[in-house]
Amino acid sequence: MSTQPLLIVGSIAFDDLDMPSGQYRDVLGGAATYSALAASLVARSVRVVGIVGDDFPEQHLADLRARGVDTAGVERAKGRTFRWHGRYSADLASRQSIDTQLNVFADFSPKIPPAYASSPFVLLGNIHPRLQVDVLEQASKPTLVAADTMNFWIEREPAALAAMLERIDLLVINDEEARQLSGVHNLVRAAADIRRRGPKMLIVKRGEFGALLFDDAGTFFVPAYPLEDVLDPTGAGDSFAGGLLGYLAARGEVTPATMRQALFFAAAMGSFCVEGIGPARLQAIGRPELAARIASFARLVDRGGELVLPG
Amino acid sequence: MSTQPLLIVGSIAFDDLDMPSGQYRDVLGGAATYSALAASLVARSVRVVGIVGDDFPEQHLADLRARGVDTAGVERAKGRTFRWHGRYSADLASRQSIDTQLNVFADFSPKIPPAYASSPFVLLGNIHPRLQVDVLEQASKPTLVAADTMNFWIEREPAALAAMLERIDLLVINDEEARQLSGVHNLVRAAADIRRRGPKMLIVKRGEFGALLFDDAGTFFVPAYPLEDVLDPTGAGDSFAGGLLGYLAARGEVTPATMRQALFFAAAMGSFCVEGIGPARLQAIGRPELAARIASFARLVDRGGELVLPG
Repeated sequence: MSTQPLLIVGSIAFDDLDMPSGQYRDVLGGAATYSALAASLVARSVRVVGIVGDDFPEQHLADLRARGVDTAGVERAKGRTFRWHGRYSADLASRQSIDTQLNVFADFSPKIPPAYASSPFVLLGNIHPRLQVDVLEQASKPTLVAADTMNFWIEREPAALAAMLERIDLLVINDEEARQLSGVHNLVRAAADIRRRGPKMLIVKRGEFGALLFDDAGTFFVPAYPLEDVLDPTGAGDSFAGGLLGYLAARGEVTPATMRQALFFAAAMGSFCVEGIGPARLQAIGRPELAARIASFARLVDRGGELVLPG
Repeated sequence: MSTQPLLIVGSIAFDDLDMPSGQYRDVLGGAATYSALAASLVARSVRVVGIVGDDFPEQHLADLRARGVDTAGVERAKGRTFRWHGRYSADLASRQSIDTQLNVFADFSPKIPPAYASSPFVLLGNIHPRLQVDVLEQASKPTLVAADTMNFWIEREPAALAAMLERIDLLVINDEEARQLSGVHNLVRAAADIRRRGPKMLIVKRGEFGALLFDDAGTFFVPAYPLEDVLDPTGAGDSFAGGLLGYLAARGEVTPATMRQALFFAAAMGSFCVEGIGPARLQAIGRPELAARIASFARLVDRGGELVLPG
């Protein structure tokens, strides 16, 4: 198989970030932004559907295009762009939302350009599950549909979420969301419950503790890449998903092996993301830095031989 | 190289365990017990030095001997055996000590039988760091000395702890202890700091999130084996250390590769330990169950091919 197009649908935003290292304003953000930046380091054809306001600099879209991202699906609406203001704890382990202004994102109704409709790989960022289904209504038989969601939809829109889960192949959520969605604390049991609801594959992200894949081939684990300097976790999960889908689209096929290899590219993108404020580090690196981190990552899990019980 | 003897020094105890699943009294416990049970599943020659009171049933020692553990170094003293009473939270993520009675363990001064003095592999369980050094004074040039410690000694005995660290090859502690010992939150930096204090190798345990090895070959990560049923975390860290040293002793040599492979045996022992109340599951399994879990563990991290950046 050869490289295939990837469609990413999700938010594009400005973030105000109160970090231990300082305060950062009007930082480029949003799930689609982080996912597209990560995916474009691996995949040749990345398409974005999102919405921005008339305050959004054209240069941000030009920067994405310069990395090979097709931004024809980014709608420009009257009004202000989605804004989020977050404050992180000193150890970056927790954060609170100071302010969320949906602005033009409040009326986002994703319109998939005809040229995007046959995208074989689709990443549905965290938006209303009804909108995620709307996107799939406009798509024609993708090879792989992956989706994110969050506690807000799990609590408020269980029916719409259930309908979405029946239509996707892969759900990518964090451990607390997996527990909340399933009502089960143990992650192995929670995964089995969630996979019975629709997605044949589930990835449970655990931040600095790595991620687990549950599929028909069994369970697979990828660690987080250990870092000396973590500056900002914003967008790490979206970068993870973008790296994952970007690798799969670049390989052009979904097998137990490509899924497992994709998780390393996902985790590598998460590791780059947290090394800069907002998307700064992801924007700064290229394929050489990615190849070097993947090689270093491989050494992190290279056990130097088979596992045999000594006689 | 071929299998070598392993000397384990540490506590032998009775534990009263208040678990979500019920209350368990007079459960066989102690670091040396868990470590010896785990090590004896891998290594042929395991020697234990510890102390018990006159209330300790000879049958417990006979059971250890039946598994090939040499208990000639277990001293029987007048008085009661070390007792600990712990209560776990509903999700088993935290616990509190209800009562600790050191009893005969309060005056424990490890005496290494002459036949043990040349043991090439030594595991120093969590006792006063001065006693850990005393053990090394009685040993003749071991191949590998590994030690555990805890927050109590880090806070109360920094000088004795520093002297101990200078004399060991491998420190095995958990993430909170690594942060407390180094005064550094980031684990990569904390590890570099601790390795400058003596041990060339450091293992940082993170419970259900796996463990990290830091040595001259770099950093290595082993996940925790994902389990559907976790009953009791008591002794998991000691089982981990026992599996680690047991594997190394069985292989008879310490190289970057045997260290990395040993971590899977360590994590496998931790996973068995938590599946039963106290040491019940470790006592129940044999080499076939261990071989099966190691094979399953290998599948958990088998990515089915090399990691190459798609062109």
